[in-house]
Parts: sequence; structure tokens; C-alpha cells
Amino acid sequence: MTELKLRILFDDAMLGPGKAALLGHIRDTGSISAAGRQMGMSYKRAWMLVEEMNTAFRDPLVSSARGGAGGGGAHLTPAGERVLALYGDVVATALAAARPKITLLEAMLKPGPSPGDMSGER
Amino acid sequence: MTELKLRILFDDAMLGPGKAALLGHIRDTGSISAAGRQMGMSYKRAWMLVEEMNTAFRDPLVSSARGGAGGGGAHLTPAGERVLALYGDVVATALAAARPKITLLEAMLKPGPSPGDMSGER
Repeated sequence: MTELKLRILFDDAMLGPGKAALLGHIRDTGSISAAGRQMGMSYKRAWMLVEEMNTAFRDPLVSSARGGAGGGGAHLTPAGERVLALYGDVVATALAAARPKITLLEAMLKPGPSPGDMSGER
Repeated sequence: MTELKLRILFDDAMLGPGKAALLGHIRDTGSISAAGRQMGMSYKRAWMLVEEMNTAFRDPLVSSARGGAGGGGAHLTPAGERVLALYGDVVATALAAARPKITLLEAMLKPGPSPGDMSGER
């Protein structure tokens, strides 16, 4: 299945698959460091990306409390939920609209062996 | 102006802004190495990307003659012209369709200083 990876370059900010996935994992895990770990990302990088998003948007997207031993926990704010949903909408809308052109490109590709295709000529 | 960077992930191939730009520069310069140079890309990497595209598609996208001192020259085949045009269509179609959602995201960004905006409060 052909997929689309889509990066939105605003004038002074950027939103792409990495940040969107990080937001999704923070929502699911309730923790910035756990979310980063699930993406093979260092704690520092995950925090940096969250800071970048919280700075770029009018309202912060992630609310967190730096905690003690167990970490402080984090969750998406309403703005964070909305940005994540809108990013998903952008990708879905873009893919649906571009699908006919993508199908034309697919038809130009060399046919690859289908998974499990054991047939030879017959 | 918000832009969209878009990477198409086929089952066994990938087409994104880098390869599309490389095709465009090859068309404009008639040379793989000159095209690579314009993108700050090594000769080796430019050739590798061209090989990747020529292998992925049924018909090669770039036709080249390895030449002597001056290099052999290269040009887009009809398939190359078509893939480049279709990729441009995909990006334009995706951006047009997703524009309303992107506008909603833009409205959530912190207002940045406009270029040349010298105004304080008044």
C-alpha cells in the first residue's frame, strides 16, 4: 500500500510525521520519555521537539510536570489534541485527493514480486 | 507561505522532494553531476539516486552516457518527464485539497513578527 509522508513547512515552524507520532505516543503513554523510547528517540530529543511545538503554537500542545523518580507524566492539551487531529486530516485529505495521480505513478513502476507470490511463468 | 514537502512511499520505492528536484536539475543542466552540484550533493550520491529511480521504474527516467573529460551528458526520458510532472501534480493537488485544514493549523500558531514589522504597541 502506497503511503504519503507529509511535512508542513509554516513560515516559522514545521510539523511532520515525527512530531505527529510523538504527540500520539505522548497521548498513549502519558509520558514524554516513554513516547520518545517507543520511537527510538533520546529523552533529550523528545523534550526538545515538545519544547519546539509548545513554543511555536499559541497554546502549548503538551502539558508536563517534571517529576521525581518516576517522571512527572505528560498529556496532550486540547490544542495538542486538535493539532494532532488536524495533521491526520491533512494527510488523509491530501492522499485522497492525490490518489488518481499516485495510481498513474504506481502503474509506471516495475512490477515487484508480490509477497507470497510463488508463481513462475505458466 | 506555508509549503508542503511530500514523500510518496510505494511498496518497493520512494519518491520525494530530493529525487524530484534532482530530475528537474538534470533536465535543466543536461548533466547528472552538475545537477548534483546545484543541490550540494556528491557526484556519487546523485548517480546513486538516478540508478535507484532507473531501477524502480519500468522505463529508465534518466538516459546518460558516461563520457570522457567533459562527462557524457544526461537527459530525462519521456518516462522521466512524466514522473516529474506527475510528482508536481501530486504535490499541487494535495496542497490544494488540504489547504482549509492547513489554514486552521496556521491560525493556531503563535503570530510571528512580520518581515519589516517595526511597530510597537499603539
